[in-house]
Amino acid sequence: MNEVIKKAKQAKKAKAELVYQTTEAKNEALFLIGEALRSKQDYILEENHKDIECGKEKGFSPALLDRLSLNPERLNDIVDALSLLINLNDPVGERLETIHKENGLLIERVRVPLGVVGMIYEARPNVTVDAATLCLKTGNAVILRGSSSAINSNKALVRVIQEALAQSMLPKDAVQLIEDTSKETAKQLFTLNEYLDVLIPRGGKKLIDMVVRESTVPVLETGAGNCHIFIDKSAQSEMAKQVVINAKTQRPSVCNAVESLLIHESWAKHSGRSLLNALQTNGVEIRGDQLICELVPSAVPAEELDWETEFLAPIISVKTVSDIQEAVKHINCYGTRHSEAILTENEENARFFLTSVDAAAVYHNASTRFTDGFEFGYGAEIGISTQKLHARGPMGLEALTSSKYVIKGNGQIRI
Amino acid sequence: MNEVIKKAKQAKKAKAELVYQTTEAKNEALFLIGEALRSKQDYILEENHKDIECGKEKGFSPALLDRLSLNPERLNDIVDALSLLINLNDPVGERLETIHKENGLLIERVRVPLGVVGMIYEARPNVTVDAATLCLKTGNAVILRGSSSAINSNKALVRVIQEALAQSMLPKDAVQLIEDTSKETAKQLFTLNEYLDVLIPRGGKKLIDMVVRESTVPVLETGAGNCHIFIDKSAQSEMAKQVVINAKTQRPSVCNAVESLLIHESWAKHSGRSLLNALQTNGVEIRGDQLICELVPSAVPAEELDWETEFLAPIISVKTVSDIQEAVKHINCYGTRHSEAILTENEENARFFLTSVDAAAVYHNASTRFTDGFEFGYGAEIGISTQKLHARGPMGLEALTSSKYVIKGNGQIRI
Repeated sequence: MNEVIKKAKQAKKAKAELVYQTTEAKNEALFLIGEALRSKQDYILEENHKDIECGKEKGFSPALLDRLSLNPERLNDIVDALSLLINLNDPVGERLETIHKENGLLIERVRVPLGVVGMIYEARPNVTVDAATLCLKTGNAVILRGSSSAINSNKALVRVIQEALAQSMLPKDAVQLIEDTSKETAKQLFTLNEYLDVLIPRGGKKLIDMVVRESTVPVLETGAGNCHIFIDKSAQSEMAKQVVINAKTQRPSVCNAVESLLIHESWAKHSGRSLLNALQTNGVEIRGDQLICELVPSAVPAEELDWETEFLAPIISVKTVSDIQEAVKHINCYGTRHSEAILTENEENARFFLTSVDAAAVYHNASTRFTDGFEFGYGAEIGISTQKLHARGPMGLEALTSSKYVIKGNGQIRI
Repeated sequence: MNEVIKKAKQAKKAKAELVYQTTEAKNEALFLIGEALRSKQDYILEENHKDIECGKEKGFSPALLDRLSLNPERLNDIVDALSLLINLNDPVGERLETIHKENGLLIERVRVPLGVVGMIYEARPNVTVDAATLCLKTGNAVILRGSSSAINSNKALVRVIQEALAQSMLPKDAVQLIEDTSKETAKQLFTLNEYLDVLIPRGGKKLIDMVVRESTVPVLETGAGNCHIFIDKSAQSEMAKQVVINAKTQRPSVCNAVESLLIHESWAKHSGRSLLNALQTNGVEIRGDQLICELVPSAVPAEELDWETEFLAPIISVKTVSDIQEAVKHINCYGTRHSEAILTENEENARFFLTSVDAAAVYHNASTRFTDGFEFGYGAEIGISTQKLHARGPMGLEALTSSKYVIKGNGQIRI
């Protein structure tokens, strides 16, 4: 039997057992996994070293090699995150609705695990532990399909996790790793509707787009962020400078960093140059429209592609607009529905922007960098959903659950 | 420009206006639609008559012709349903979460419309009004793609709806009908991710399976119901008889009717014959396993296909099982995750069944026929979801909404 089918069958079997595990049993398993990751540190780092060596041979960039690397400190962070996860509320079993019918029927809607979660992801080995433990906490079985560049690390981590599960009340088969990292195994997961309840891609836009396009299994889309800040006519100059510099430069490589700036013409005239110079001082390249290039001659003229690009780098596209309508229209056209902000002292404009912009998170007078499960206080994050069904924005544990109606009677029939 | 693209563009434009309509404006539009459906009754019935004549020529079955037919009474029912809809709470704008951050940020999660809903459905013209008005109530634009057999009725209904919208505050283009009912237009909707936020198929299993398989637009799956009742060892004989006869015969053509019966061997021996005879007296054909055929010689021997068939007719498959584990395993293998019931006096078995059976609705000692938005008190029903993401079970208005984080600050930046 093919590896994917074999492991999918095992995961489906494990799911049937996971569904009636107590919170205590699940937390105990997470604790044992943490202990095992600590005690097997040398083994894990040795295996990770193989991936690094292999990556060097293949000429990976230093940034990629860094993302691939584990060390005692990073392993420690992973185990610390596990302790936090243990302390989070277990959403499974929560009553979401209670309906008492006149005929005596009691209808309750309760949270249940999704079942079997498929996770397709790139590079970083910490995602392996992250995905496995978030799924276990919510009573889900998981099938992991990481990338070939991290295969030795992933195999070691999953082996350690499965050994810990074998010591626990949870089924050892609840966490499965697809070891064949050829394209075919990823594609096989796309149509595994018989075994998979949901598929979560984590990685670059190309990967996510392919999963959305080709998967018949329902997908939880964690998308890219071409985020905008619109500086309205009445925006405070100093606030605008601080917020824009924070949103662009505090961590340019993440999805909630700002990529594009829209500036009201009249604001651009009195405060534009000062803001753009400050960005340049902070090492940011400006790609501007004509007015911007006139204000700051060192700016690069923007091309059409710049309005739709998520740079993930110290580059920003800047456009002037004649009013808020033009700004909203531009954002709804070029944005990726992630995080969008308006800076304004005009309450009516703020309201219009917050209502009209179609995005997971909309901000008034704050940096887009706050769109994050931990910042929102969720204690864990599966990713940031840019789709509209099921979950939108930072996804906590609840995004890994569904619900079910449980109806109790004493012989009621429908009349 | 192609009809589908043209109307999708109009719907997307309308969506941008719908997003800030008040509850009052939406309800007024619904009221005007009700008035118009009443005053244009003759025109609508004339157009419907054309579909009926056409259907007769094509040799449609009396059942299909009946589903296609409108008459003053049915139009009246449609308008009455509209009055109920007006009185339902508007979910849009509801605050689902409020987070006060220490740095002064106010984070609110609020309900918003999905955007543009695509609806692909078969035969019944009442779905046209239903879908359009449920979408309008929740601030969504809708693109309707009905079947060719109802095209004259659908054109008339949408024309009347659009004329009413033109009198209201809502954009007339919020409701669009694709008049070209060739297969190509349905397929075009499957990949219209740029314009559609969700696609809802309503109809037979074949249609739904095709949409799930081929659509890259997220789908709300309203699925088939191969529903089971498991009669446990300790089930009360009289209760079992009443519940099974109700679930099978009260309305055999609907998705929450029972299709398959699992009977504990020992119960079958003492009360099986009496129950099965009662079913036969009610006109139900029995397709049984060996033991059942021995108990009731007039039963037809069941074939493998009978365990997986949604008969939607007075036919029931009946199997004996040796324990509850076998029953649960059979249901999780053959069921369609719709509605599943256990009849038992054993609380522990009830708990095991309710937890282990993977379905939208699980029942203890009651008929499966209660799985219904109106029975649950939701006042409206989009359909019954058998998927696990976004919505599961009877879907009320909330299933047509998403949420968005609205964050208000005074210059906060991330440190």
